[in-house]
Amino acid sequence: MPGNTFGSLFRLTTFGESHGVAIGGVIDGCPAGLEIDLEAIQLALDRRKPGQSALTTQRKESDTVQFLSGIFEGRSTGAPIGFMIHNTDQQSKDYSHLAEAYRPSHADYTYDRKYGHRDYRGGGRSSARETACRVVAGAIAAQLLAKMGVSIAAWVHQVHEIGIPENTEGVDLSQRFESPVRCPHPETAQKMIAAIEEARDAGDSLGGVIATRITGVPPGWGEPVFDKLHADLGKAMLSINAVKGFEIGSGFAGTRMRGSEHNDVFESSESGIRTRTNHSGGVQGGISNGEDIAFKVAFKPTATVLKPQESVNKQGENITLEGKGRHDPCVLPRAVPIVEAMAALVLADHYLRSKTSKL
Amino acid sequence: MPGNTFGSLFRLTTFGESHGVAIGGVIDGCPAGLEIDLEAIQLALDRRKPGQSALTTQRKESDTVQFLSGIFEGRSTGAPIGFMIHNTDQQSKDYSHLAEAYRPSHADYTYDRKYGHRDYRGGGRSSARETACRVVAGAIAAQLLAKMGVSIAAWVHQVHEIGIPENTEGVDLSQRFESPVRCPHPETAQKMIAAIEEARDAGDSLGGVIATRITGVPPGWGEPVFDKLHADLGKAMLSINAVKGFEIGSGFAGTRMRGSEHNDVFESSESGIRTRTNHSGGVQGGISNGEDIAFKVAFKPTATVLKPQESVNKQGENITLEGKGRHDPCVLPRAVPIVEAMAALVLADHYLRSKTSKL
Amino acid sequence: MPGNTFGSLFRLTTFGESHGVAIGGVIDGCPAGLEIDLEAIQLALDRRKPGQSALTTQRKESDTVQFLSGIFEGRSTGAPIGFMIHNTDQQSKDYSHLAEAYRPSHADYTYDRKYGHRDYRGGGRSSARETACRVVAGAIAAQLLAKMGVSIAAWVHQVHEIGIPENTEGVDLSQRFESPVRCPHPETAQKMIAAIEEARDAGDSLGGVIATRITGVPPGWGEPVFDKLHADLGKAMLSINAVKGFEIGSGFAGTRMRGSEHNDVFESSESGIRTRTNHSGGVQGGISNGEDIAFKVAFKPTATVLKPQESVNKQGENITLEGKGRHDPCVLPRAVPIVEAMAALVLADHYLRSKTSKL
Amino acid sequence: MPGNTFGSLFRLTTFGESHGVAIGGVIDGCPAGLEIDLEAIQLALDRRKPGQSALTTQRKESDTVQFLSGIFEGRSTGAPIGFMIHNTDQQSKDYSHLAEAYRPSHADYTYDRKYGHRDYRGGGRSSARETACRVVAGAIAAQLLAKMGVSIAAWVHQVHEIGIPENTEGVDLSQRFESPVRCPHPETAQKMIAAIEEARDAGDSLGGVIATRITGVPPGWGEPVFDKLHADLGKAMLSINAVKGFEIGSGFAGTRMRGSEHNDVFESSESGIRTRTNHSGGVQGGISNGEDIAFKVAFKPTATVLKPQESVNKQGENITLEGKGRHDPCVLPRAVPIVEAMAALVLADHYLRSKTSKL
Repeated sequence: MPGNTFGSLFRLTTFGESHGVAIGGVIDGCPAGLEIDLEAIQLALDRRKPGQSALTTQRKESDTVQFLSGIFEGRSTGAPIGFMIHNTDQQSKDYSHLAEAYRPSHADYTYDRKYGHRDYRGGGRSSARETACRVVAGAIAAQLLAKMGVSIAAWVHQVHEIGIPENTEGVDLSQRFESPVRCPHPETAQKMIAAIEEARDAGDSLGGVIATRITGVPPGWGEPVFDKLHADLGKAMLSINAVKGFEIGSGFAGTRMRGSEHNDVFESSESGIRTRTNHSGGVQGGISNGEDIAFKVAFKPTATVLKPQESVNKQGENITLEGKGRHDPCVLPRAVPIVEAMAALVLADHYLRSKTSKL
Repeated sequence: MPGNTFGSLFRLTTFGESHGVAIGGVIDGCPAGLEIDLEAIQLALDRRKPGQSALTTQRKESDTVQFLSGIFEGRSTGAPIGFMIHNTDQQSKDYSHLAEAYRPSHADYTYDRKYGHRDYRGGGRSSARETACRVVAGAIAAQLLAKMGVSIAAWVHQVHEIGIPENTEGVDLSQRFESPVRCPHPETAQKMIAAIEEARDAGDSLGGVIATRITGVPPGWGEPVFDKLHADLGKAMLSINAVKGFEIGSGFAGTRMRGSEHNDVFESSESGIRTRTNHSGGVQGGISNGEDIAFKVAFKPTATVLKPQESVNKQGENITLEGKGRHDPCVLPRAVPIVEAMAALVLADHYLRSKTSKL
Repeated sequence: MPGNTFGSLFRLTTFGESHGVAIGGVIDGCPAGLEIDLEAIQLALDRRKPGQSALTTQRKESDTVQFLSGIFEGRSTGAPIGFMIHNTDQQSKDYSHLAEAYRPSHADYTYDRKYGHRDYRGGGRSSARETACRVVAGAIAAQLLAKMGVSIAAWVHQVHEIGIPENTEGVDLSQRFESPVRCPHPETAQKMIAAIEEARDAGDSLGGVIATRITGVPPGWGEPVFDKLHADLGKAMLSINAVKGFEIGSGFAGTRMRGSEHNDVFESSESGIRTRTNHSGGVQGGISNGEDIAFKVAFKPTATVLKPQESVNKQGENITLEGKGRHDPCVLPRAVPIVEAMAALVLADHYLRSKTSKL
Repeated sequence: MPGNTFGSLFRLTTFGESHGVAIGGVIDGCPAGLEIDLEAIQLALDRRKPGQSALTTQRKESDTVQFLSGIFEGRSTGAPIGFMIHNTDQQSKDYSHLAEAYRPSHADYTYDRKYGHRDYRGGGRSSARETACRVVAGAIAAQLLAKMGVSIAAWVHQVHEIGIPENTEGVDLSQRFESPVRCPHPETAQKMIAAIEEARDAGDSLGGVIATRITGVPPGWGEPVFDKLHADLGKAMLSINAVKGFEIGSGFAGTRMRGSEHNDVFESSESGIRTRTNHSGGVQGGISNGEDIAFKVAFKPTATVLKPQESVNKQGENITLEGKGRHDPCVLPRAVPIVEAMAALVLADHYLRSKTSKL
């Protein structure tokens, strides 16, 4: 079963390699009648685009999305929404040195073993460029969700050793895109920027954690057994390049609590039944309970570094890879819109699925 | 899209509630000709069974699996394997107090909001009893994988604040089921047992972490984009009751490393191309690279405690829930075979999927 | 991808062989809150059961369905509905002569080539006994559809050379189960019965055509491209044992009409926009248009005959198969509830799918 | 569940409307390493293209396919193959008269009821232009199948009342594209052409039957229950615009045979076990038996005629539609490559599926 489709009722299929003609995708299942805000989609894409600041790779991609179908007179028609982003930065340079070499912690070796035949130019299909398509689809999903009162905010919570302090009050998530590092806590953002600049100058890279908060999801979204809402969110996040971990609500820290502390006591409120705490992260038994959905995603430091690295080639011979060219010292700022997009795809899917759960 | 099916080519569909007639499932896609070791399946079930030691719930379930189809003369036929486990412990006691009350951090409230109509007896479909079906199917998947040289071992790595020390040498994973707490490090196991007994006596519960190591997976399993091998493993684990987090390889700790440290350098060896370190956890670009697959799963402390708890009922009125009856102070020992089963389901699926990746 | 699941949102997975322990299935996706009429389900099963009249096989199957989950206090809960029918007629007789012989136009040979290892007792998985599970699920689907005002009637339209005359007025479809041959036109029914009795006595078998009429489907069910409503109906029918053809509306006869005759002219009526004729059979562009859905299904004469037949065995040696035992001279009367069931599964699925087509 | 994806392991997702920017699709699951013959793909497209002869619509579509991904150095990489066909014939003329009118036996009314909002230009998504994408994908599937020795030939068997005589000897299927009507029997072809020209001049349209023969499929393809090989073929054909019927092997005519005549007797031959007759049409129990796969597809006369027709508009008012512009008096010649393409998609899918049926 091929793995380039995500979702069941709201469904994205993507295609494209880093240095082919174009990347693109098909969004199938978007209900008819949704007004599509094209500028908001391009804005999300721009937030993922390389070269936005000195913190990210200087590779230039115009990343302009072109819609090919499924939208008529500004609204979705229920037909599949095809879209495409041309690869304009296909330098004619020679990539043949990558045809044989296996870059450490990249997908060169595993693709070769799986497929035998590989488009090695710029990482081909394994390039994170593929995630631009997720951002396009996620932006449409977010517009559908907005109709339901749902909004999604992700931000950079930690870079390397630097994290937003616990119990920080007054962080304004709506300002998260004001900082080039996508951290809504200005003091922490400054420290993160300094750390990334230091790593960049050293030709090295840093990882970190992106946090997400989703508000407005009503109780009842998610399936109770295999397709638990947080299981689908986890898969969505783990499918993003460089992600190595996912936790919802109390997560790994919650393993050190006792049940009597961890349980989220129900209480009545004006807005109905609510929980006093939210260690569950908004999901109980796989189904949303009406509280904010909160999760964290761990990103490893990007594999591309500008230092020489030992490796082997296709023939198993020892080689030394010289770091050169453009590199992204910290992928997290650009990953924020990707995390938001994947969350939106999961929620739009479960919104549609929730329509059939009862008579 | 209903959520009671897991997998694409090796596929499990389950049914059943805690206090209905039976639980069971259908395994579809098991290749024909596999010798089925029924005793090994029952052994896996027995390891999940309640009442095995003083550490787990004293609820007695005979948990004897009956196969209904798909196996003939000891081997799979390629037809779907139907199976059933009767619910023998259906006490005729009155569960009606649960019809209205919402137990904190259980699924009572969310099921009611999603479905309107709910089998409340013993948690119904949300009961962890459902996972017995996963163990049955996972045991068959494991037998298929064994043919390919793949073996899976999970163990309790941490309970509450007590974890196996870093860099512990000489832990023999094959002994993990010798300890009632399923921890292969005897000193740590003793401390874990003491902690669980303390919590049990206090009517409280503890969470923790299960670690897993999978050996023998050849390079090339996993799909490169949405169905990355670790994304499917993550979803599988997050679909288990009480799981709140998943990490592969370096996971959350890896976010504090630099790229130059984290990258797994390739080197040639007698067994082909290998990596010197394994921060990737055996998966690169979503595809297995031939190294051990290593991941961790975070379990929250179980929601059932024997202390009185505030809550609300269906009408939104304040109530106090009296803890009573049987309770599982720490679910981790019993969850080890469930984690192994879900890992086996994911790998058997990707093994079959890998058969079609190239000419 | 294993092939024992049917449907996307209203989904049936079946298991079981003719002479194993049991056959059964899992219905996933039935919305919560549906009152389940168990007697109506058993009635549908009884109509499919062998041994109802002298026209069908005298094999006795009690065919009593037992529900295992998903129904609580008489209503669906949204959880999967597991069910089982025990195989009570497993005679201890020796089937080993079938282990090697390939019966003409049965699935013995193709199963052996596909799987290598086969449960040959009574046809195993290829036995039409499997369709009993479809009838169970279809009966529940029909109850869901009844809530929407949809009703389905199939009947035997032709047996061998004997068909209901064109333009027959006054046929009362509600009486179709009154005749043992399930033909609502009494004169034709008599002739069909005589023909079947003649074939039975000759040890031979007859095929025929089942017609179906579905009323009450509102406009808008069906997907416009690959999952056209009639494409899914066609697949459903062609998946029934012995079916060789399907046509909707004007079907093959319509190929001899001109466009100006065939087009169904729209006109306004009290009940909204309707078509003057219904050559489309209730579906236009793959989507229901509110008219009756009408289709026909061709059944070949059953492969089991009581005459000696030439054949070969597994080793390719010439053999003669002696017809013996029980045989079904005409499968059509028993196939009527199967056709109705499969139609109900398709429509229930598209009913649920239609809920997400627009904002 | 959106309906713009076809297949499970070899999978096509399409998008695009008649008068949007482009139509296109994504082929997912094509194994890596397949040499792609681009000219053969374009040739198939050209055979579907309008304006090839005086028999078909004079609308001009350049129908040049552009591949965007998944092919590198002439071979498939295992990554999804994205492709696009620009809509070059988007006349700037006013289509607004179609915004309100419901053309008889078109999908205007049903789309409006399903979606509420519709791209009415040239039929939008319901236009048969969508099938060009099927031809592209089918041509690649055919190249994969050719590696397995499988070849597919469809031809026009009947137009209106004119059919190829029974028991015609010496028809050379390889010549089927030599005739503009795609009928390999020259005498019949001449009569068909005359009939189509007569209908064209009368502003009317004709239907007919396309026959298909597939050679080289080994025994063992197809799934035994719901996804029977001929059930998937039937769905594939019924999903093509204007198709109203499907039959395999003896089909509807076989309902008039007796079992003893209809059964395909097995016999040993140099090429293994074969059947003496082929009433089964190459499929038994849903699985290929190694004989030629033979089926027929019924096409209604196209709905577009150039005669005035009564109808209603969106408001339910009576209107008269004046036939004007371009029209396709008989869709069958152009449908031949579409039938071949859909057959190829089904077989490529089942070829891949067959790889996992046994150990």
